[in-house]
Order: sequence, then C-alpha cells, then structure tokens
Amino acid sequence: MENGDGNEGASAFHVPEWMIQFADQKQEFNKRPTKIGRRSLSRSISQSSTDSYSSAASYTDSSDDETSPRDKQQKNSKGNSDFCVKNIKQAEFGRREIEIAEQEMPALMALRKRAQGEKPLAGAKIVGCTHITAQTAVLMETLGALGAQCRWAACNIYSTLNEVAAALAESGFPVFAWKGESEDDFWWCIDRCVNVEGWQPNMILDDGGDLTHWIYKKYPNMFKKIKGIVEESVTGVHRLYQLSKAGKLCVPAMNVNDSVTKQKFDNLYCCRESILDGLKRTTDMMFGGKQVVVCGYGEVGKGCCAALKAMGSIVYVTEIDPICALQACMDGFRLVKLSEVIRQVDIVITCTGNKNVVTREHLDRMKNSCIVCNMGHSNTEIDVASLRTPELTWERVRSQVDHVIWPDGKRIVLLAEGRLLNLSCSTVPTFVLSITATTQALALIELYNAPEGRYKQDVYLLPKKMDEYVASLHLPTFDAHLTELTDEQAKYLGLNKNGPFKPNYYRY
Amino acid sequence: MENGDGNEGASAFHVPEWMIQFADQKQEFNKRPTKIGRRSLSRSISQSSTDSYSSAASYTDSSDDETSPRDKQQKNSKGNSDFCVKNIKQAEFGRREIEIAEQEMPALMALRKRAQGEKPLAGAKIVGCTHITAQTAVLMETLGALGAQCRWAACNIYSTLNEVAAALAESGFPVFAWKGESEDDFWWCIDRCVNVEGWQPNMILDDGGDLTHWIYKKYPNMFKKIKGIVEESVTGVHRLYQLSKAGKLCVPAMNVNDSVTKQKFDNLYCCRESILDGLKRTTDMMFGGKQVVVCGYGEVGKGCCAALKAMGSIVYVTEIDPICALQACMDGFRLVKLSEVIRQVDIVITCTGNKNVVTREHLDRMKNSCIVCNMGHSNTEIDVASLRTPELTWERVRSQVDHVIWPDGKRIVLLAEGRLLNLSCSTVPTFVLSITATTQALALIELYNAPEGRYKQDVYLLPKKMDEYVASLHLPTFDAHLTELTDEQAKYLGLNKNGPFKPNYYRY
Amino acid sequence: MENGDGNEGASAFHVPEWMIQFADQKQEFNKRPTKIGRRSLSRSISQSSTDSYSSAASYTDSSDDETSPRDKQQKNSKGNSDFCVKNIKQAEFGRREIEIAEQEMPALMALRKRAQGEKPLAGAKIVGCTHITAQTAVLMETLGALGAQCRWAACNIYSTLNEVAAALAESGFPVFAWKGESEDDFWWCIDRCVNVEGWQPNMILDDGGDLTHWIYKKYPNMFKKIKGIVEESVTGVHRLYQLSKAGKLCVPAMNVNDSVTKQKFDNLYCCRESILDGLKRTTDMMFGGKQVVVCGYGEVGKGCCAALKAMGSIVYVTEIDPICALQACMDGFRLVKLSEVIRQVDIVITCTGNKNVVTREHLDRMKNSCIVCNMGHSNTEIDVASLRTPELTWERVRSQVDHVIWPDGKRIVLLAEGRLLNLSCSTVPTFVLSITATTQALALIELYNAPEGRYKQDVYLLPKKMDEYVASLHLPTFDAHLTELTDEQAKYLGLNKNGPFKPNYYRY
Amino acid sequence: MENGDGNEGASAFHVPEWMIQFADQKQEFNKRPTKIGRRSLSRSISQSSTDSYSSAASYTDSSDDETSPRDKQQKNSKGNSDFCVKNIKQAEFGRREIEIAEQEMPALMALRKRAQGEKPLAGAKIVGCTHITAQTAVLMETLGALGAQCRWAACNIYSTLNEVAAALAESGFPVFAWKGESEDDFWWCIDRCVNVEGWQPNMILDDGGDLTHWIYKKYPNMFKKIKGIVEESVTGVHRLYQLSKAGKLCVPAMNVNDSVTKQKFDNLYCCRESILDGLKRTTDMMFGGKQVVVCGYGEVGKGCCAALKAMGSIVYVTEIDPICALQACMDGFRLVKLSEVIRQVDIVITCTGNKNVVTREHLDRMKNSCIVCNMGHSNTEIDVASLRTPELTWERVRSQVDHVIWPDGKRIVLLAEGRLLNLSCSTVPTFVLSITATTQALALIELYNAPEGRYKQDVYLLPKKMDEYVASLHLPTFDAHLTELTDEQAKYLGLNKNGPFKPNYYRY
Repeated sequence: MENGDGNEGASAFHVPEWMIQFADQKQEFNKRPTKIGRRSLSRSISQSSTDSYSSAASYTDSSDDETSPRDKQQKNSKGNSDFCVKNIKQAEFGRREIEIAEQEMPALMALRKRAQGEKPLAGAKIVGCTHITAQTAVLMETLGALGAQCRWAACNIYSTLNEVAAALAESGFPVFAWKGESEDDFWWCIDRCVNVEGWQPNMILDDGGDLTHWIYKKYPNMFKKIKGIVEESVTGVHRLYQLSKAGKLCVPAMNVNDSVTKQKFDNLYCCRESILDGLKRTTDMMFGGKQVVVCGYGEVGKGCCAALKAMGSIVYVTEIDPICALQACMDGFRLVKLSEVIRQVDIVITCTGNKNVVTREHLDRMKNSCIVCNMGHSNTEIDVASLRTPELTWERVRSQVDHVIWPDGKRIVLLAEGRLLNLSCSTVPTFVLSITATTQALALIELYNAPEGRYKQDVYLLPKKMDEYVASLHLPTFDAHLTELTDEQAKYLGLNKNGPFKPNYYRY
Repeated sequence: MENGDGNEGASAFHVPEWMIQFADQKQEFNKRPTKIGRRSLSRSISQSSTDSYSSAASYTDSSDDETSPRDKQQKNSKGNSDFCVKNIKQAEFGRREIEIAEQEMPALMALRKRAQGEKPLAGAKIVGCTHITAQTAVLMETLGALGAQCRWAACNIYSTLNEVAAALAESGFPVFAWKGESEDDFWWCIDRCVNVEGWQPNMILDDGGDLTHWIYKKYPNMFKKIKGIVEESVTGVHRLYQLSKAGKLCVPAMNVNDSVTKQKFDNLYCCRESILDGLKRTTDMMFGGKQVVVCGYGEVGKGCCAALKAMGSIVYVTEIDPICALQACMDGFRLVKLSEVIRQVDIVITCTGNKNVVTREHLDRMKNSCIVCNMGHSNTEIDVASLRTPELTWERVRSQVDHVIWPDGKRIVLLAEGRLLNLSCSTVPTFVLSITATTQALALIELYNAPEGRYKQDVYLLPKKMDEYVASLHLPTFDAHLTELTDEQAKYLGLNKNGPFKPNYYRY
Repeated sequence: MENGDGNEGASAFHVPEWMIQFADQKQEFNKRPTKIGRRSLSRSISQSSTDSYSSAASYTDSSDDETSPRDKQQKNSKGNSDFCVKNIKQAEFGRREIEIAEQEMPALMALRKRAQGEKPLAGAKIVGCTHITAQTAVLMETLGALGAQCRWAACNIYSTLNEVAAALAESGFPVFAWKGESEDDFWWCIDRCVNVEGWQPNMILDDGGDLTHWIYKKYPNMFKKIKGIVEESVTGVHRLYQLSKAGKLCVPAMNVNDSVTKQKFDNLYCCRESILDGLKRTTDMMFGGKQVVVCGYGEVGKGCCAALKAMGSIVYVTEIDPICALQACMDGFRLVKLSEVIRQVDIVITCTGNKNVVTREHLDRMKNSCIVCNMGHSNTEIDVASLRTPELTWERVRSQVDHVIWPDGKRIVLLAEGRLLNLSCSTVPTFVLSITATTQALALIELYNAPEGRYKQDVYLLPKKMDEYVASLHLPTFDAHLTELTDEQAKYLGLNKNGPFKPNYYRY
Repeated sequence: MENGDGNEGASAFHVPEWMIQFADQKQEFNKRPTKIGRRSLSRSISQSSTDSYSSAASYTDSSDDETSPRDKQQKNSKGNSDFCVKNIKQAEFGRREIEIAEQEMPALMALRKRAQGEKPLAGAKIVGCTHITAQTAVLMETLGALGAQCRWAACNIYSTLNEVAAALAESGFPVFAWKGESEDDFWWCIDRCVNVEGWQPNMILDDGGDLTHWIYKKYPNMFKKIKGIVEESVTGVHRLYQLSKAGKLCVPAMNVNDSVTKQKFDNLYCCRESILDGLKRTTDMMFGGKQVVVCGYGEVGKGCCAALKAMGSIVYVTEIDPICALQACMDGFRLVKLSEVIRQVDIVITCTGNKNVVTREHLDRMKNSCIVCNMGHSNTEIDVASLRTPELTWERVRSQVDHVIWPDGKRIVLLAEGRLLNLSCSTVPTFVLSITATTQALALIELYNAPEGRYKQDVYLLPKKMDEYVASLHLPTFDAHLTELTDEQAKYLGLNKNGPFKPNYYRY
C-alpha cells in the first residue's frame, strides 16, 4: 500500500507525470518523513511520494544504541547471521506482535491451512520490498509455509518495526531493514536481498517499485529466471505500465492495487470509518449539526459523506465528473462549487487526488474555527504553502493540529498540515491489511504456477476468480454463509459453479 | 428497455441460451401478456421475453372501435396518410401527454436547444422500434429537431399509447403502431417502416432486436447504407454480441444498456424507491420491524436492502458471489442461506436473475402471511409453477395480489404472480426514462457523426464522454453545480478539462 | 382516531378555541366530507372537524337500494331485529373482512385469550360511537368475549363499512350505522344506542365526543350508573378537559389519545412510511436528489424527514420551537425560514398543526412543478383558499392531484387540496389500528374494574403499566423477546419486575 | 454532571437505595479514582459514586512541588490571597485554556452580553461546588459578569485543572481546589467557601450534593438567607428529593439534570458519537459487518444503536421495557435475550443502568476476541468481579484495554475494566458542556429573581421556557433560523409568541 493509493478521489486515478520518479532522482529524500509511528505502520510510503509524515513515536524508539546495524555482528539463536536488523534481542516482543496480528488475519491463516498440503510455492524464491510490520510478517511466514524461500527489505526508511524485523530474523528469515535507514542504507538493504551467492530470486513482491527498479538497473540478467512481479502501489503500478508501454517489461506483472476487494476496503469501507476517527482524535468535535463540504465524490468521498451524514452533519459535495456528481445528488447531497459554501461550512475535507483544490482564497474566506483536512491522494490538495506567509501565525495546539491565525484573529484548524488525515491521525484496521496481504499472496501463487504462456510480458489485473477467492476467505469473519448454485442454476446462468461470477466490466 | 433488464440481480448479467429466441420462433406469442397498463408504459417488453403482464387498463382502452387500423383510411390534418395508428382523432389528447412529459425530460429539451443550431442529425434517416409512449415521442421529436427523419414501429404489441401514436402521426411522423397488435400486425408495422419507396434508413434504434432481425432477414442489402445500430435491451444486446461473435455483424452497434448512468438509474436508484412503492400499493403493509430476506446483492438488491433498512426492516441477504457477499456484510446485512431464515421472515424478495431461487420447499416452510415477490430479471426466480397444485388454493385478493392457501390454513401472499414487482405494481419515474432516452439520442448522434473507421463492425459501449454528457444534462434538475478543472489542475491530472474523467474500468 | 390527531406537528398540541364546537352548532355539516373510501376507513372523522374528504369509492357503494335503513324491516338469521344497517344480507362478506383483520390484530386476539377466563368485562354495558370498520368489529367482538354487552353507533356519517355493520348485526350486536347517514340519522342512531328499554350503559367508548355530548344533553341522569368514559380523539379529549375545568365532568374519563404507544405509532412510525406512500401514489415522483422543506419537526415532521433523507432527498426544516429546532440540527437538517428556501425546493410538506404556514406569497414564489402537501393536523396549514382566485387555473390531473396554474404558465402540484395527505392518499396499516384498539380495550377494562376511589371525576392518561402492556402484546408480531429482571436487579433498580418501568415524565 | 448520569439506560432512572451515601460514610474514599485526565476533565465525579477512574495524566501533573497548597502563602498579582490553589503562577496558561473554551461556549458568551446590562444576578452570593475546568471557569466568569459574587470548591478530589484554578484566583475568584486533594482537604475547601467572615451565600450551585450536605450539617441557619439550590447530578437530585419527601428541604431546589436539552445532549447525541470514538481509540477495530448486542434501548442505547447501524454493524438489542422494546423493533433492531446471541456477537455494550447485566456465564460463552464495554450508568453492569478468578489471566494490552484469557486461550477484550467507556476512553465535546453550563446559569437566574412564592420548599424542573431558551442560545452555532409565529397563528394555537411552545408532558 502506498500513502494515498487507498484514497484517490473521484478524479484521482491518473498518475501524473511528476509521479514517475525513479530512484536515481531521489534528491528529495532529505525533505521526507521524519518517522512513521505505530499507527501508520501498515501503510506503505513509497519512495516516489513527496508526501511527508510525522507521527507519534514507536515504543521502540528510545533506543540509545547509536551503532548502525550494518556495523553490528548479530546472530540469531540458531547461529544464523544472514540478516541485518536493529537488535535481534527484540525478537520475543516482535513475536508477540505477530501472534496478535495472526488472530486478526484469518484469511492468511486459512490460506496456510488450505494450501499447505500442496505447497503451491515450493521452489519459489521470493524477494520482497514492503513495509516491515507485524502484518507483513504474517504474510511472509504464510509464504514460507506454502513452500517459498523469502528475502526481504523495507520499502520505506522509517516504517520498519524493529522488533518485528528481529522476530523474523530470529525465525530464520533473511531480513534487511531497520527504522531510520539512510538512503544509502536503503539501497544497501535491497542489494543484500538480491545479490546473494548461490541464491537467485524467481519472484518479486514490490511496493513502490524500488526493488524492481534496482534489479532492472543492476542485475538485468536476473529477469531471465524471474516468473513475475507483484506490485501493489499506485506508483509502482504506474511505473510498470510505463515500462510495458516502452516495451521494456520483460516479465509478467500483476497489478494488485486495482482488485475490487482491495479497492473497496482501502477506500469506501475504510474511509467511512477513518474520517470520523481522524476528526475525533484530533479535534474532539461534535459532528451533529455541523456543515461539511467534501471535495470529490469518488470512493473516498462517498465513504466520508455517508459517515458524516449518518452522524447528523449537513454535507455538501463538489465534483468535476458529472456522473459522480449525479450520484451525489441521488444520494442526497447538494452539489455545489466550493466557493458557494466556503463561508458557511465548519469542515472542509478534500478527497480528489487533485492539487490546489483548497486555495488561499478559499482559506481566506473560511469562517473562524473552520477545520480543514485532506483524505485524498497526497499533500497537494490543500495549498498549505500559501499559508506560510508572514501575516499568518501558526500555533501548534496538539500533535497533528495547527491553528493558523489571521490578523483579525480568525483561526483555521489545519489537520496533519494537509497530509492524509487517515494516515496521520487514525488507524488502518488489520482487517483491511488482511485483504491486501491475501491478495498479494494469491497473486504470487497465480504467477508462480501459471502455465507457460498464460501471462505475457505485460501488466495484469488479479484474475476475477482470485479476487472472489480473497473475498470468500474473509467471509467467515462475519459468519457469513454463501449460497451455492445448483447445477441447474449454473447451467441456466451459463456460469461455473465456482465462479468467476461476473464479467470483468461489472461495477459492483 | 426490456422487462427485467433494469433489474438484474447480482448474478444476472449472463444472458443464457434460452434468451436467444429469434422472431421466427415466436410460437410463444399467444401465451404472452394481455395488456400493458399506463403504469408500465415506459417499460419495454421484448419479443423474446417469456414474462407475462397484467395491469390496470389504459384509459384509452374502452375503444369500441373494433376495426383493425390496417383497414382504416386515416389522414392527419395536413392530409398526410403515411402512418397507421388506432385513431388519429386522439391526437390532441396525446399532444397534452407529450407536453407533460417534456416538462420532466429537461435533458432532451436541452439537447434540442444545444444541438439544434448545428443539426447533428441532418441527413439521418432513423428507423425505430421501441415502446410508443409520451417519453418516446419526446425522443422522436428531439431527433427530428436535430435534423433526422424518423419512421417508427412498436417493439411490443401491447405497450403502445394510442393517443400518443396519434399525436405523432398528426405532427407528421410516420408511426405504425397500436395497442393490441396481432403478431402479424407486429411484423407488418415493422415492415412498413423499412420497406418504403424512395426512403432508406441509415440508422437503426432498436429495443429488443426485432427490427434489426427483420432487416437482416428481409433486406440484408439495406445494411450497406446503415451507419449503425443503437440497441438498449439486454436481449437485443445479447443478439448483437452473438452476431458479432459469429462474424455476421455488418455495421457498428452501440450497446447503450450498459452505460453507467442508465444502469445506476434503472437499477440502484429506481429500485430503492420502487420496492417500497410496490409493496405498499399491493399490501399496505408496515415496513418497521419486519424481517426481510433479499436474494441477490447486485445493484437491484443493494437498492432494495438500503430502502428497507432505512424504513426499519431487519434485512437478511443471500448471495452466490463472495465479493457481493462481502459488500453486504460491510453494509450491515447478515449474509445467510435462504433456508436458514425462511421460517422467520415476513417478506422474501428475489433480485438474482437466476431461476428457482425460491422453491416449493422454501414456500412450504414460510410462515403464515409471508409476502413473496420478485424484483429480479424475469418470472423464473420464484418457482410459481410449483404452487399450481391441487392441495393449494389460490385466492385473488386484489389486483396483483394472490393468497396461496395451504391445507392447514397457512397463507402466502404472492405478488404479481412472481413477475417483476416494480413493473407490475409500481411506476417508473419519468426521470429514469429521461436518462435512457437521452442516452439513445447521444448514441445515434455519435454513430452517425463518427469519422470513418472510428467504429468497426462490432458492438461498442457508449463512449465514456457521452455517458458523462448524459449525466451533465440531468444535473440542472437538481440545481447541481459542477466544478471545472483549472488548466493547471487538468495538466496535473493529465485530463482534458471536458472529460472523460475516468478510465473505462472505473467502477463508480 | 380523528383526522389529524395522528398528525400533530411540533406545535400542534394546543386545541384552539374554535375546535370546541358542540353538536348543536353543526350547521357546518353540509360543507363536510362527501365520502370516506376504503383506504381511510379506519380513520375517525370527528364531527367537529372542518376538514373534508374525498376518496376512492367503497366497493359497496354501488348500492342502488335507495330506501333509508330506518324505513326497512330487517332481521338477522336468528330473528333478531335490534339493529339498523344498510343491508343485513351483506353479512357474509363483512365477516370475511373481519376475519382478515383478526389475522393482523394479534394483540386483541391475545387479549381475548388471556382475559377470557376471568371475563373482566362481565356485567359491563358499553355504548360505543366510533368508525364502524373491520378493525372496530374485532374490538367489539373482543369486548363481547371479555363479558361486555355492547351497543354501537358510527361517529361519522360516511365512514361506516356497511358489510361489516351487517356482519356485526348478524352475530347479534345492536349496531346502528350506515354509510351516508344524514345528520338527523346520525343523532337517531346514537339515540337508539342509549335510549333502550331495560338496558342502561355503564361504560362509554367515544371518538370525537358526540356520544358523550348527547348523553350529557338528553340523559344526564344516566351518568349515575356510568363508571367511566374512554375517549381517543384530540377533539373529544379537549372537550373532556373543558368539562373537567368547568367542574361539569361527572365521571372519570380516560384520555387514550396521549398514550406513548399510540402517539409514536400514529405519528412517527406511521408517517415515516405514509409520506413516501402518499407522494408516490399521487405523483410517481422520484425522491432521490429532490429538495424538500418540511414545516414542523414534531413527531410527524421527524418521521417525514427521516424517510425522505433515507431516500436521498435534501431536506430543510422550519420550526418555531427552539428545542425541536435543535433536534433538527443534530439530526442533520438545515433549519431555515420557509421564505429562505421557497424558491428552490421541489416539495413543501406541512406538519405543524398551525394555520397559514404556507401562504399565497409562498405559493407565488415557488418554482414550476413544486409539489405542496399537508401531513399536519387539519386542512388549515396551506392557505388553499388564497389559490381560488380568477387569475389562477385549477386543473385536476388525477384523483387528489390538482395543478394550479399561474398566468405565466407556472404550475404548482397541490395534493388532496391541502387536506391530510396520509389520510387521503395513503393507507393506515392495520398494525397501527391494532395499537389503538388494544389501548381502548385496556382502558375500558381498567376503568370498569378500578376500585372505588382510584379515579375521580377527572381526565386521566392511560396508566403507564397499561401502556407497557399494549406494547408487550404487540411484541410477538416481531418475534421479539423481552428480558426479565432478576429479583436482585429489580431490587437494585427499585422496580417491580412487571413494571411500570419508567416514571411518568420519561420521554422515550 | 456525574459519572453516568449522562448515560442512564432505558431502565436506569430510579436511584436505588445504595446511592444515598452521605459524606460521613465516606470510608470508600480510598478505593476511588487515582486521577482524572484532561479528556474527562469536564465530567463530574460525584462523591457518592463508587466508580473508579484511571486516565491519561494531565499535562500539569509533573509538578514536583510536594507542599500542600494549604501550607503555602500565595497572593495573586493584585495582592489578594483569598483562595487556595496549587500554584498561582500557572494562571497565564489557565487563562489561555479559558479563552479557548469561551470560543466554544457561545451561549454563555451570548448570555453575558444579553443579560449584562441588567445584571440579573446583582447581589447574588453564589457558593459553588463543581468540577473546576475551563468550562466551569467560563460559567463562573459569566455569573460574575451578571453581577454575582462567587466562592468555589471542587466536587471531586481529582478533577481540578490546577492552571484553571490559578487563573480564576488570579482574576479575583476565591477558589479552593487542587488536583489530588485528600478527603480532609476536600471538606476543608468546601468549608472555606461558606465559612467566611462577613459574607454569607444566598445561592447554591451543587454537583453531587456534598456542598448542600455540608451546609445542612454545619451551618443549617445559613439556609435562612439562601434563595435556592441548583443541582445537576443524578445523585444530588436524588438526595434533594429524599430531603423533600422527608420534609427537610428548607429552600427551593432546581433539578437541572432532567431538562430536555441537557438530557438529549448528554445521552442521545453525545453517545451516538462517543460509542464510535471510544471503541476506535481503544481497539482500532472496524465496525463494518460486526455483530453487536446493545443492552438497553433508552436514550444511550438508541444513540449507540443508531451509530453502529450507520457504520455497517449488525445490531441486536435487549430490553426489559416493552415500550422501548417496541421502539427498537420499529427502528429495525432484532430484540433478543442476551443469551440468544452471546455466542455469536463481536461486541457487547451495556446501556441499562442495571447491575449484572453481563454475567460470568455470559462471559464464559462469548467467542474469542469479543469486546465488552459499558456505556451505562455505573461500573455495575458488567460483573467484572466475577472475572477476578485464578483460572483467568488478565493482560493489559493498552491503557484501558485488558485481555481476559480463558484456560483454553479464548480472550475477551474488556474496556475500561467495565467502567464507563465514554468517560474513560472518549471525550465530551465542549458543546455538550456548554448546554449544561447554560442551563445552570439560567436556573440560578430564575431562582434568584423569582417573585416570592413562585417556588416553595420543593424540587423543581427547569421551567419549559428556560429549557427552550437554552436551546435557542445554541441555535446560532448551526446558523439555524427559527420561525416566529404571527399574531394570528399564536392566537390560533393559543400560544404566547415567545413560548413555552409545548405542554410539560411533551416527549420530544
């Protein structure tokens, strides 16, 4: 998952030019996040994002051990030293975190059970580059249980949970990641995953495209043995499409970002809850009776609007797309231009994926105490830069909450400095992460086992049937009972009894 | 529109074999509908449907004129006799109906205004075969205003509003249609539209595929001049895809049935209201506290569930598709098998498109006074035939309402004999019909004006941009104000400021 | 029930002076209702109402028998002739209606069973004056089963269902009522109930106060033996309070109109459904996206607003009471003055109980096609009289639907001529009537069996415990399972395990 | 406000015997709260509560100054020393807190403006005993602005915000309160408020009844000059009713706890939001698809159910009161006994005010990971004591979150150890506190200015008109526009144009 890919607004599916930043152009690194706290652990922060983060400190932060992990000599209890983590002694605590996550990821656990006998990943050598969290650990150990060998690096320099990395190293996974890597460390870790004597990967699991990029750049021959790439971030997927267009993609790749299940959970269902959570945790405000304008009525906007309406807010919507606009109307929201309501609203929420949706002019016209926040794609939606002018005073009133004060005393309440509210100020339920991880695992199994020729050197969506399988693995959580087609019904509908049940263009 | 095409349930998108019934197999005609009342006028009843209808009588029914229109000599006030309708003298009344419909179809009226200057259909010779209703008349007169010549027949032997046909004839449209045509009349009327001295159609607007079929069969050469076919029914679309597969489609065809706007309005938005309306008009029941099971969580099921939940019913859902099932869970519905709740529910609603979803065994186990109805695709969802056994007594208690009585006195309340509740017992708002008619008009304009080569001999979906345009034409009804992209934003998103705003796979 | 008492808006609880019209001032009779159709059968139309009704004809209307029932000699099958109905031969059909109603009134049937052994009304001689409908018949036969003797007249000259009256007469109830009584007939019928040789009532069940008034005027001595009056209409209750204030009430009276259960069902729950039903049946409009203003946020307004919001309408509220206004805010509705939104709304609904809430000035400013209707107390809320001016054209487009046309062509859609929409254009579910009838039965039992001195010559609300009992009798309909207090819990709460569970001021 | 008084469940209005604990029986003190964090500052913790609290530390906690305030010599900047607070130097910081609170309490600020000219409290000498928070400070300074002299103590030993107390002392208010008082300190502070040379209170504002009790016990003669008592807690109100019953109440008292506005905000509106907030902050769970049982369908239960239903949970309700049970049915919830669903639910929420609603037997039968929490009156609803047995392991996983682990590994997630979730784990919006404080101010004004004889030595509810006034003062927050009655309308309704608009029994 990438910051924001779970949050594109109605109009935010086009990945614009500027997003295509390959790693050798990473001069922006220094501007980037200071750290990623526990809360947003499970979110991936792609290399290519220009979004920045600040968050509560991890409980393992206070390490006074300043030695770089690269300079340490560590072994796990079995004497193995093929890993590089902050402190192998934290393994026990990390193991407990993993066990808790296992309880909330029933689909992966079921996958372990169901597929274990046949070891569908026997022989697979997977190199991975994702956030290193307890949920990732459950995924990795599932891949292992299914027969795969894995080597893993972090896709973000701040998001690694050190104790989880330690636990993985302790149980024998070659993991190269710690919280607070330098840029040099970052690439060193990736290199340690792929550049191994006597081991060559045949599958790639990437989140952001950096790992893929590294192999392209340094070890292009490696692709001869690679059966496929699974990529889950908006940016990484975009890079793959670019490679494909340019005729340079030399193995099949699977875009798991756009599977139905993942999209609905990352956006509609997750944001329906996180908008309330994010606003409450930061402002303790009451929703009842508040006037809110939501910019963008894509999946994220739909989730925000539904939640706030249910809590008694009066919600206005802005849109650029007439179809989404008509949906907003039919769902009971006044469709307005932002300037029409900007003077009267109590809250402004952006969910567009666009830039400068909220301008300084809008900010100037807001009423006192208006709350402004962003649930959309990146930190561009609110023109925060325009607020950094001498006549305005900034006052930090809480973590993630700034009052911006006009000369006449008017205060705007800006949340997370315009970055993503749901990443900064609320949590992602493990259930959502479970959907993503299961999707990744199935995509790996599919690509690895696909008969010769099923997949060409192109970018594919997850097959419908696998998407349905991910969903079915999560139904037991709700004690939900699917109906099965009779033979007669299947024939009548012209369907296989096991699916897929819908054509590809079905909109759900 | 076809009976049911607006109502496919979750699993109902596959058109099974049996639906492909070409006209020469129409021995079933006699079993079919007796008449179509005012309420369902705007619904199309395809030739190929096996569904039957009964409904309130039209107010023009009581004609004691038994002479066949084919045997009459009629002229309109300008002396023109190129038409065949029931009674040209009803024109004035029909005109008033058309005027009322115009008020509720602002998009077509706007289209008339916007496109009139340029006459985008100048030179178009359109032959149409649809239901003949006031709304269709507004469409035809719009096509005329845009420059087209039209000739029109009815796509259903019962659905013609005679007075509207008269009004169209009076204003010079060659219309060949009346209520209560025989099968022979039906084809005669179609033939009169296409088999004209000195006039040859270059566009086809079809609803059900019968007109297309007739031309294929009788005047295949005519396709040389035809620029395209616009088809709006599930069945007609399916026939076109079959032709295309078989390599026999010799002109471009446009499937307007699957446009986003039309689908959402025909299914989700329309059914959200019509389920309540249909149940109230037939049973006067109270929704609060009732236990309801909805079979199928497609767009129709989603609409039904949302409405009943909002009215205080307790709703259970059955599904075969795990993705839709997961959606039902996240929307707050218990996902069950029908047999689990059949003893306890007060209402059973089918929205699957499948057959024998409610079996005799289910019916036997329902509790006294349970209401059973169908919002799905056709009359197959409830096994009504299984209730026609000697030990059960049928009692007609109201129009469209039967009590089926078990030997022990238990009564089941069966609505519309298992046919579509929303067609039989509620109305289709003109606003929904306006969406459809506008879509048809734009598809005609597109096909007619497309540069050589844009469309091949294949079946196309309505271009996204046109779908968006249909939506935009309906926004003024809600006094809804779209936001326009700035140049900078459009560039950032890589979008044209006028759309299309989404990729084709976007799910809305 | 009285027209409107189920519909008082937020501000409509004060019965103003003009409502206190005693029967001898009934010169208004001629202006009154023409007939009461099947749909509104169960509604009471008080003598003192100035509201008028028109509705679909009863199926027994078409009697060509013009002889007054008073002039006929009729006997039931047992030779009994102590009744006066339209046609005793309709008894069988009426019996079937009663049987159907019994199925939907489980609480009364349960009461019959539970209380039958002890015959709590043994010795009771009840004279009743209510609407004569199938539901009333179930009530009367329940009273009979509990031991009471009953004599009955109609409280409205148009609302009697002749076949039900016949069925009651056939089974031995002295019933004096028919549809279309003259005013003289009306009082003659009442007199025949009370002025009987050798029989004197000891209980009164009244709906509107006319029976009570008649006894006060003609047979004041009768009160010596009367143990109490049960009255259910707003007007009747108000008359009783006036009598009480004036020191003229000579027996205990029970106001069943204001019991919790009855109020919630008559207002909130019933109107939540009937607003949708009434609008659909009259206009076939689509609710989604429509802008609606609801005047008054009492129970009726709350029901209307909740329903329309759920269907996707955008709802504005007007209020005079700041507490109700604050509730509207917290429930997510913009609180406005009518004049602020009158130009933009698609629908105006009055639920205030007030007069001239919608004035000619408002009507002049409404936009074309605006729908105007009344869900409030009486026909005064919309100033319909102001529309009867020469420059405006009225056009009846359907039963209960008028277009009022301004010189510039603007049309307003006026429903039910400003009378109550839910009485005129939708139905009252039997479940609601069941609540009322059960309340009446329990009030009679309570008053009849109360120990000397429990009730003085005053007006009482139904005891909380009885209100709770009415509710409990309706729970099985929903298969609802109450929890019982343990002894320990009851002691802890200081409650009796069987209730009452709340203090009188509890607001629910 | 008292812990829980804002949260009584359906059945929780009776104050049982055990609650009447006067201060001289305070041996329980030691078991009580350790501290009150910022979040719950504004909540009152009555002396008589047996509930305990733990919470995040206040940011002023880290005082290393161990000297008792009673032993310090402090003066404010004007040389005044008639106060006793932790540290007068914290005044500036407290002032800022007060200023922020002022922005969110527009009603009190409006009251200052509106009533200031006339000084309605001129001559009033108010002694108060409440929580000392920023919101209280706004109230006190409002009372001062209206002409009153005030002396103030804390009603809870842990809830005082030291910096706010300092700010009040700095601006001249004799305040005697600090965080972490001993029991002896507690009474000493109260005594310092009343036992003053040359100053005698004539009004009492109490929260919990301790101040009132102290005066009764020590200075009974003081009541000769006291014009009235305003009390806002459930317990304090109950004590007053006991005094009244016993004939010992010697001045008028006003029960502001049961005003409409306060009740609705404390319960329905506040809990609708805080149930979500409390669950999210403690568990980060996803609500969609979860099965929840809510015990009790009073105002609190109604709020919880509405919120969870809106978020996609499947909600079951238990009730003892058939009327509330019927409401639950009509609102779309299955009414069950707890034992029927205990095995299947994911969350159990108590809102009853009762004891042992969730027993050990229920806890034994819950499924793994079931979350259990209490939104009701006190800490008695869940039998937490029954979980303190040797075979169960408790594991604290977060602040306020315990896992209770069964021998077979099953874990129950217990929140706030069964104490009130919304006090422990969420916040009370200032808007809710504003309603309460405004009600208190108006009650003081009313009692102080009431003409001789209007109030006897009894307990009164806030006059309806004042309740309406409180509401009206909060409407501008929502930019809500009240409609005013015309003279004609007021006459028609028999109402004064300025209210009150409803009879006392109106249920809202």
